[in-house]
Amino acid sequence: MKLEKVLIVDPINGEFNGDIEIKGKKISAVIRKDFDYKEFNTIIMPGFVDPHTHAQKGIDTMHATKEEFKSWAKNNFSYGVTTFLPTTVSASKEQILKVLDNIEDVNSSIEGVHLEGPYINKGKKGAQNPQYIRNPSLEELKDIINDKVKLITMAPEVNGFFEAMNYLKEKNIIISLGHTSANFDIFKKAFESGVNRITHFSNALTPLHHRNIGGTGSGFYFDFNIEMICDGIHLSPEFVMLVYKIKGADKIILITDSMAAAGLKDGEYELGGLTVTVKNNQARLSDGTIAGSTLLFNEGVKNFKRFTNCTLQELAKVSSYNALQDLHIYDKGRIEVGYYANLVILDKDLNVKETIFEGEKVF
Amino acid sequence: MKLEKVLIVDPINGEFNGDIEIKGKKISAVIRKDFDYKEFNTIIMPGFVDPHTHAQKGIDTMHATKEEFKSWAKNNFSYGVTTFLPTTVSASKEQILKVLDNIEDVNSSIEGVHLEGPYINKGKKGAQNPQYIRNPSLEELKDIINDKVKLITMAPEVNGFFEAMNYLKEKNIIISLGHTSANFDIFKKAFESGVNRITHFSNALTPLHHRNIGGTGSGFYFDFNIEMICDGIHLSPEFVMLVYKIKGADKIILITDSMAAAGLKDGEYELGGLTVTVKNNQARLSDGTIAGSTLLFNEGVKNFKRFTNCTLQELAKVSSYNALQDLHIYDKGRIEVGYYANLVILDKDLNVKETIFEGEKVF
Repeated sequence: MKLEKVLIVDPINGEFNGDIEIKGKKISAVIRKDFDYKEFNTIIMPGFVDPHTHAQKGIDTMHATKEEFKSWAKNNFSYGVTTFLPTTVSASKEQILKVLDNIEDVNSSIEGVHLEGPYINKGKKGAQNPQYIRNPSLEELKDIINDKVKLITMAPEVNGFFEAMNYLKEKNIIISLGHTSANFDIFKKAFESGVNRITHFSNALTPLHHRNIGGTGSGFYFDFNIEMICDGIHLSPEFVMLVYKIKGADKIILITDSMAAAGLKDGEYELGGLTVTVKNNQARLSDGTIAGSTLLFNEGVKNFKRFTNCTLQELAKVSSYNALQDLHIYDKGRIEVGYYANLVILDKDLNVKETIFEGEKVF
Repeated sequence: MKLEKVLIVDPINGEFNGDIEIKGKKISAVIRKDFDYKEFNTIIMPGFVDPHTHAQKGIDTMHATKEEFKSWAKNNFSYGVTTFLPTTVSASKEQILKVLDNIEDVNSSIEGVHLEGPYINKGKKGAQNPQYIRNPSLEELKDIINDKVKLITMAPEVNGFFEAMNYLKEKNIIISLGHTSANFDIFKKAFESGVNRITHFSNALTPLHHRNIGGTGSGFYFDFNIEMICDGIHLSPEFVMLVYKIKGADKIILITDSMAAAGLKDGEYELGGLTVTVKNNQARLSDGTIAGSTLLFNEGVKNFKRFTNCTLQELAKVSSYNALQDLHIYDKGRIEVGYYANLVILDKDLNVKETIFEGEKVF
């Protein structure tokens, strides 16, 4: 396959004109060309990566069958997503094991699972079902953890966190801090123990105060990689801009945190056993708590660009490269020889026109 | 006068060894020398500048006689301060006029007055007496403002702010935003109107929230110069470090915000007609509200160095140069030929050993 006369956006080499050649699943050549292409309407970026998505179009991580996971992956191609982690909510061990069982053999753009909970702080539960929130135990972890678990969101202040952390690190599972009331000192201890990621910053964290900088301040203070939900609801545009100014594009990982209504209409839905009402694209529990988003990944990418006026190169970082690096996936996320040919083709308004997954046009 | 074999710290040229020659009130030569001086114990920095101090050692801006202002200036030399602005609190027009009258002809390290209030937001009054808080009027401003007023802290959301701002700008008076409930939009409007300073960040401002970044977020977002009280009480050390990391030393102005107990013992004091109890160096109203500091300027300088581990060059910026630039005073704050010889001589632990004011040893 050959993609000719396009604007190539690589997170490291930047933006340039040229051709891309693909052989099999991988990129075989990237050829820079100095042609005059004023009416640019074909932008090629690395395929998008969503490491935090609970559900989409009625297909929910907690209930999906093997077939449904395949449909989800297929649907996600239309939003430019070529790698994603279906994300659980706090649930029983049996429910979690069932999820891990059902994504077996999917062998697609699903790279594994993100466990968001159950080892979080009930005081910062957000829309998680408190009945399933508990402290970690090595015994349970040993039953749950297998190589399909890539990422786990935990609160560092819960009993057993640091023991669990050591076990998870041995298994090469990435830990992300979230749904936590931890203060600066605990964030410091976790960061200095090698945990360098925060879940949906700065939702479900303690706020920044000038006498106690909290989880929010810690996210700015230390060199954490941070997830951000850029739906304009979870975070104000100014907050997104502020984070971009302070931390820079290298530290931001866009996510959708989407629930079942993403891609569907307003109405009543379910998340982890709780009823969620979606109105004007806002998903909320009956008490008003935001319950995930209805964001589609490519819309989040457009929003980030609009909120920050970042470069396309930076957009390739926050939408793909950073998430992959963070997950220790090093053969995806760039437009460079030898990398997987996971690509999204966009028009100048960042609408997804085509998606290529492992060298094949899938949308 | 000649100061030989010293470590010279200039906010622009940095740190270097050499000699300083003074003729009359000004620096006549700065000579760099490459001598070996391992046991360094003589650091020379530009004299400290405190643009926000209500009182010290029982002498209060609101009540001080002309003689007392002179004593205050003299006392302040022992803390390395060679320029300061006695600072009012919200008060009647008559009280403010009396203050302005009493600092007449002082002709010392007192550069003028900082009016903190009365045009602030009652909802963010801090330790200001609410009975005197009011909206600005051009009529009152015309009676009050003369060339002794250098700086005024106002809340941008109060009625009449922007009209007052235009008048004050004409008179070359610096406006600082403070004691304000203003949100991002109002901070934006004020900043884009040319107001670029915030009072005792981020005390008496709205907090940073991820859906409403408030006054605190605005201070980070825009290129404001910000005052900081580094007594370890108003702001946690981590907050000071965070601000230093985010905004850098060029934007920080150290202040004491000191009240009458500064330099004296714990006990009962008064601020703007309110009773203040000082215990363990913490000044508070009966409801627990922090009521100014008991900080002496050189202690704040030491604290900032300790909290941030900044360079001495940066310390010269936050303790002197930035405040002067902000006040449009361009012939002080550097160790360079032609500048006023306002200098503080410190040992390696930043204890004040000697102070020179306009070429004369005054401490």
